[in-house]
Amino acid sequence: MTTSAQLREQMKGVQSIVITPFKEDFSLDIEGLKQNLERMINFGSNGMVIGGSLGEFSSMTMEERKLIFKIAVDTVKSRIPVVCNVSDSYIERTIQLAKYAKEIGADGVMCTPPYYQKVSEEGMYQFYKALNDAVDIGIMAYNTSRSGNHMTPKFIARIAEIPNVVACKQGTRDIEELEETVYLAGDKITLICGSEVMAVPCLAMGYKGTTSTSSSFMTEMIVAMYKATQEGDYKKAADIYFNGWGEYRRFLKKGGMPATAKAAMNILGIPAGPTRLPFLELSDDLKKELKGILERMGLLK
Amino acid sequence: MTTSAQLREQMKGVQSIVITPFKEDFSLDIEGLKQNLERMINFGSNGMVIGGSLGEFSSMTMEERKLIFKIAVDTVKSRIPVVCNVSDSYIERTIQLAKYAKEIGADGVMCTPPYYQKVSEEGMYQFYKALNDAVDIGIMAYNTSRSGNHMTPKFIARIAEIPNVVACKQGTRDIEELEETVYLAGDKITLICGSEVMAVPCLAMGYKGTTSTSSSFMTEMIVAMYKATQEGDYKKAADIYFNGWGEYRRFLKKGGMPATAKAAMNILGIPAGPTRLPFLELSDDLKKELKGILERMGLLK
Amino acid sequence: MTTSAQLREQMKGVQSIVITPFKEDFSLDIEGLKQNLERMINFGSNGMVIGGSLGEFSSMTMEERKLIFKIAVDTVKSRIPVVCNVSDSYIERTIQLAKYAKEIGADGVMCTPPYYQKVSEEGMYQFYKALNDAVDIGIMAYNTSRSGNHMTPKFIARIAEIPNVVACKQGTRDIEELEETVYLAGDKITLICGSEVMAVPCLAMGYKGTTSTSSSFMTEMIVAMYKATQEGDYKKAADIYFNGWGEYRRFLKKGGMPATAKAAMNILGIPAGPTRLPFLELSDDLKKELKGILERMGLLK
Amino acid sequence: MTTSAQLREQMKGVQSIVITPFKEDFSLDIEGLKQNLERMINFGSNGMVIGGSLGEFSSMTMEERKLIFKIAVDTVKSRIPVVCNVSDSYIERTIQLAKYAKEIGADGVMCTPPYYQKVSEEGMYQFYKALNDAVDIGIMAYNTSRSGNHMTPKFIARIAEIPNVVACKQGTRDIEELEETVYLAGDKITLICGSEVMAVPCLAMGYKGTTSTSSSFMTEMIVAMYKATQEGDYKKAADIYFNGWGEYRRFLKKGGMPATAKAAMNILGIPAGPTRLPFLELSDDLKKELKGILERMGLLK
Repeated sequence: MTTSAQLREQMKGVQSIVITPFKEDFSLDIEGLKQNLERMINFGSNGMVIGGSLGEFSSMTMEERKLIFKIAVDTVKSRIPVVCNVSDSYIERTIQLAKYAKEIGADGVMCTPPYYQKVSEEGMYQFYKALNDAVDIGIMAYNTSRSGNHMTPKFIARIAEIPNVVACKQGTRDIEELEETVYLAGDKITLICGSEVMAVPCLAMGYKGTTSTSSSFMTEMIVAMYKATQEGDYKKAADIYFNGWGEYRRFLKKGGMPATAKAAMNILGIPAGPTRLPFLELSDDLKKELKGILERMGLLK
Repeated sequence: MTTSAQLREQMKGVQSIVITPFKEDFSLDIEGLKQNLERMINFGSNGMVIGGSLGEFSSMTMEERKLIFKIAVDTVKSRIPVVCNVSDSYIERTIQLAKYAKEIGADGVMCTPPYYQKVSEEGMYQFYKALNDAVDIGIMAYNTSRSGNHMTPKFIARIAEIPNVVACKQGTRDIEELEETVYLAGDKITLICGSEVMAVPCLAMGYKGTTSTSSSFMTEMIVAMYKATQEGDYKKAADIYFNGWGEYRRFLKKGGMPATAKAAMNILGIPAGPTRLPFLELSDDLKKELKGILERMGLLK
Repeated sequence: MTTSAQLREQMKGVQSIVITPFKEDFSLDIEGLKQNLERMINFGSNGMVIGGSLGEFSSMTMEERKLIFKIAVDTVKSRIPVVCNVSDSYIERTIQLAKYAKEIGADGVMCTPPYYQKVSEEGMYQFYKALNDAVDIGIMAYNTSRSGNHMTPKFIARIAEIPNVVACKQGTRDIEELEETVYLAGDKITLICGSEVMAVPCLAMGYKGTTSTSSSFMTEMIVAMYKATQEGDYKKAADIYFNGWGEYRRFLKKGGMPATAKAAMNILGIPAGPTRLPFLELSDDLKKELKGILERMGLLK
Repeated sequence: MTTSAQLREQMKGVQSIVITPFKEDFSLDIEGLKQNLERMINFGSNGMVIGGSLGEFSSMTMEERKLIFKIAVDTVKSRIPVVCNVSDSYIERTIQLAKYAKEIGADGVMCTPPYYQKVSEEGMYQFYKALNDAVDIGIMAYNTSRSGNHMTPKFIARIAEIPNVVACKQGTRDIEELEETVYLAGDKITLICGSEVMAVPCLAMGYKGTTSTSSSFMTEMIVAMYKATQEGDYKKAADIYFNGWGEYRRFLKKGGMPATAKAAMNILGIPAGPTRLPFLELSDDLKKELKGILERMGLLK
């Protein structure tokens, strides 16, 4: 049983945003998910975030969300932390998911502010408070523009006072907010940044880790980049990033996420399958371009 | 049975965004909802939008969403059109809700683009297309910043070619987009604007109606404003708006929606009750201020 | 001598943003400017704004700015009001231009907040106050995103208390701000809207006029649209706008301003000439497309 | 005589944005400027940017702008590079300033895109091209939201092909753009970041230096932070930044720039004087708060 205090210590390094593989009929690919989790553990990921935004939770039923939580916990078997995304527009569904996560032995939950509606800061606070009061499990708050409700650094520092809120995935692109978050909340909770693009600069500033969707298929490289920063070699980290990742990153703007990650995984023979609506498969032309990039990255032999 | 072609004709005038009343224990107040529907019909509303954004659909279960659809259809009994909001992040839930709406005899459905995820324009198109193909019922698309996926006027003109998409609730605040929508799509589908604030200018430009959340308790005034525009008397319409609504409108920025509408209804003895999270009740000070405004508006005697 | 109080009454109808014609060597085309002023008066413009944003003041010397003020005042000879744009980043230059405008008998000045720097609201207020205190001439404040310093409706209501600030050209595209400005400041100063695109909706809401850059060559149509609104016939006004202006408006997004207006004038034989940097001439393809539009508008026979 | 190629090499480390000191009557404080330049050289600044945004160039006459260029070049005497800001809305004034800078022996010029007007990308390109063609002096482009014309990383890579454009001060706050700029243009021109707030993360990513307005009075600390990054000790750099600068940085949001820098300098006995409009002096309360901060920073004994 992982306590909130323990989760605070564990939320560092490379936290993989786990892709949810589907079969050709769009049903869950359970075996594929298990294989992918094993693969990422073998290559050095430090933690797993299940059913996240790019794990397509918003196009799943409640039953499916719970099912992948269970598969992950049972597969990972406490080798690294498993954090389950319980974000929802309705607090009752969030609580229901969090209770389930706790019941099956997940290490923590991730939660965005309530999405869709424009919510006051006090409303966001009460949402996190209600989750804290209903379930005793460590919470990683997630600041993402997808929710439509921005958490300012000051607000992050405020919810950091809620006992179970022990980490924050900071997804803002504003460098002044990234800095302010370290200043105001860095001593209170564990901060990790929202994507590989901001990993090198954020780790230099005091973030403890980064989430990574690409670690579903290029785990080694992301892990190597992170290790270089921990050895204090930022030049090496930036080189790994720009040389290893630069071209793929540019491609992402065309292909979009999670479709690009799934296309790459399918090309590389890693279970992924199609995306569900509203995401669309890459065109054949884009798949061909992506294949060339994966070859140049040395991922496809 | 209302056809898509018929719905296109009906989507005009004052379309009430129906507040969902809750009891003190936050459960649905079915009797209250019935009373409110009767009240608004009596005061001249031209249509009902059930379970919309300010009807708090995002904090309801699927069962509750269906239940209020049924109550509305059975209460209104075809006196005016009933449009059910089937918006969801997951197309399967949207289709399930739309099938139910059709089955019980609703006149049409309202649907935002899929929310939460950042979606490509083609992804949004396929979402509407999938809804059109799955259920044969008239669709009013709804452009709202809440979804996080903006529909450009050009895109609205594109989905206007989908057979069942016969209307659009245009919620953008950009006056150039409001204009562009009339130019590109005004001949193809029925346009109504997204709130009372933009009603007078939009009706002058060619919109056919306006949605109204405030019509839950000040139906008469909104209807009078609309009628003045139909008689070509924009000066009168603007006077009704600014004199009747001006102070309340300013207050809305403090109190927020739907909490303010519910507070006003509770003060006036119209069934509303509390809001569900993430919305919060107005403070006592704000309630007092609101009461004064309702008195000055002549609504509270 | 026009007083501030008189200017307040005059700022209505179609206020032409006068294009500054250049010769092929980019020097001022004084004779062309005189002809254009006569032409617009003959076709019914209600006022002239000299050296405005689309009059390319920001690419002129102080001497040139003063010269076109003088030409305009001497040509118009008080038949309609002449307002001179004295906007600048430096208050001393603004005051110098305003003193000159008063000296030569201009009816008023237009002034944006100080541009380039990010300025506090109090800083903007002191800027207008300093202008008011230095020169006794009526001021039309101009809210434009170009300045980088947004004036909220509340701020506009605040500067409306400065004695010489008697009008405001409201250029925001946000329909809620357009509404709020009428509510908070409409009784204090004369409001005119910032472009033809927003003329019909804004006049319906209570604005007293509109600025118009296109009136440099399609004066008649803009004047006819305005007259229709004054007769209460908004349907006719919208028809004139969408039928007469719709296609040209769409083209503007490709060609940009003021290059498109100058290209149209050159095609129609109205003095305009080239734009100065940073504006660029339209490509030959765009000019051809524009010519077709002008033919369909009935402007080119 | 510094060539463009030489300037490319020199644009690294701490580039001071030099505050322009005024006397109590708002005239230039020439002696103060000289003292400040000497002070910053003594404390280790790597270069001087004269008459920049926070040097209040936009509230100066052309003569004053030239005068401070001259004072700076004559005072610095080639000990470190002097770069003169020639930004203007009108290309002819920009060229005039750049010619003067070259004539007196400045090492380079800084130039934003033309400001105030909304300019096409091609228009911005032609602006830089015209400057390049008119004067043979190294140019540091400056991407700032003040200009109202954003330079995308792709555009920066494009102007990097113009022979004299050898450096770029990147002021965007978007971390993905900061990264993209390194990837697309980092090998072509020298990149420095736009403020101390982004120095640590940007230097970790591959930027070669940072501009600094605060180096007018806390040169030592900024220089120490930069040196730590050059020694690969990002932890130390971040500590210097957050501990030394953290509280002052938070205060900046209240006091604003350049008023806060000037207030701090006045408190510390470094020549600064008042700001010109549209900037306002700090209130007495804010000055008192600032004094406390400077004491805690160890700057005021």
